[in-house]
Amino acid sequence: MSKQIIVGYLGPAGTFSEQACQVLAKHYPVHSLKPLPSIPHVLFETARGNIQLGLVPVENSIEGTVNITLDMLAHEVDLNIQGEVTLDIKHCLLTKGPEDSIEVIYSHPQALAQCRRFLLKNFPDARCITTESTAQAAQIVKGSQEPVAALGSMQAAQEYGLFVKFHDIADYQGNKTRFLVVGKEKLLEAQPEKTSLFLAVKENRPGILFEILGEFARENIDLTKIESRPTKKELGDYFFFLDCKADLLGEKSGVLKRLKNTCRLVKVLGCYGNVE
Amino acid sequence: MSKQIIVGYLGPAGTFSEQACQVLAKHYPVHSLKPLPSIPHVLFETARGNIQLGLVPVENSIEGTVNITLDMLAHEVDLNIQGEVTLDIKHCLLTKGPEDSIEVIYSHPQALAQCRRFLLKNFPDARCITTESTAQAAQIVKGSQEPVAALGSMQAAQEYGLFVKFHDIADYQGNKTRFLVVGKEKLLEAQPEKTSLFLAVKENRPGILFEILGEFARENIDLTKIESRPTKKELGDYFFFLDCKADLLGEKSGVLKRLKNTCRLVKVLGCYGNVE
Repeated sequence: MSKQIIVGYLGPAGTFSEQACQVLAKHYPVHSLKPLPSIPHVLFETARGNIQLGLVPVENSIEGTVNITLDMLAHEVDLNIQGEVTLDIKHCLLTKGPEDSIEVIYSHPQALAQCRRFLLKNFPDARCITTESTAQAAQIVKGSQEPVAALGSMQAAQEYGLFVKFHDIADYQGNKTRFLVVGKEKLLEAQPEKTSLFLAVKENRPGILFEILGEFARENIDLTKIESRPTKKELGDYFFFLDCKADLLGEKSGVLKRLKNTCRLVKVLGCYGNVE
Repeated sequence: MSKQIIVGYLGPAGTFSEQACQVLAKHYPVHSLKPLPSIPHVLFETARGNIQLGLVPVENSIEGTVNITLDMLAHEVDLNIQGEVTLDIKHCLLTKGPEDSIEVIYSHPQALAQCRRFLLKNFPDARCITTESTAQAAQIVKGSQEPVAALGSMQAAQEYGLFVKFHDIADYQGNKTRFLVVGKEKLLEAQPEKTSLFLAVKENRPGILFEILGEFARENIDLTKIESRPTKKELGDYFFFLDCKADLLGEKSGVLKRLKNTCRLVKVLGCYGNVE
């Protein structure tokens, strides 16, 4: 990267997104990190050119896809996926002190979902309130006089001076989140190992998805993800998001050409590699 | 239905789930409706036999799958899908009176997502707080002294004596939600038009999903939904939920048999029809 790169992320300081930015900054000359209040803010600010790159969560190993990220990349912003960062996620229950009574637990909806059974077992009567990020939840706990807690990272505990009441409390082991680095101009130089695609079929008929997947199977390309998302027009009418292990803009560009037989829309969201 | 049927649903009174129950009660001799505080409560109470049927939302035309419903039917309860109800959803912004300032908007996360652009445009500074249901949000507004609002139904406005400040505010036209009726014993007698399946593949290799879909394409069976959900063990490792227009326990049972060549787990969540 030749110019001064500002990377926007889901803030405030202390989010897992910030940790993913720090991985990015180890490998690329990032000038500064800019915390933003929501995922739509990160994507819109990047699309407007106010920041050069945006980093957003796209998928978690327990709770699955972050819908707002995929929907916005498909429909609302014209950005290119340039790389991905995968991070181990360890959620902590953060409080102001060691006291026991907790009436409200704040966090991002994904974090609450990832720790759902832990919370049900240990705090069956606590009310869960969602926030835009785990660090925003920690910030609220810091400023509150009530018996409240946040789900967030160790970094958030340090950042906001909170007490770590429980450590690593997700309902399943090996909790990981995948983040995408997006931008208008090509700035990251990782070898493209993967392509993310957004498809709309020409007609809804038996066998159409089978034909689409046939284009990948024929070339022995590994699909690493398939996700259906509603077209928002009619129940049962879907778009598809596919990730595959191939460079569909390079060596395997024939696949894209053939997909146009069955799809009215084939949008390449990016050909990219892991940032590491 | 011969015996006295109690149907549990996501309450309190005034939810869209309650409206879907009323559709069910037009066609079957439902004895009473029991509001419950969350989707897990509805499914667990049905599995324990405390109520005969549970009615839960599974999919919305704008925001897509209700993850908790699919995940619980696959992993946490042993219940059979017996029917589906599809309902037109019209969200209203409910307040205590016509005053303009609104600082906090309460609702179910799906409702907030379905009206995201409306809220961003009209109330960019309002804070959104999620609740277990739209009617719970209306209940909170009724009891609050602050400048707050709820997203919910006209029925909720009537139930809690609230003012309808805006009507039908979802971001896309034709907003619909699909609900499932689940139970332990077979109580509904609708003609099975559809099968819902939960699949785990034997191995993650290129072409495996293509082979699975081939079993349906070969019989000219229309897939109406495919959804990948994380196995929660490893990022990139998925289960699949499929809906298809065929009775896989009856006429088309050969498909299930052949799916066992590629899948280590084939769970039929139900063969069912529309309640109407």
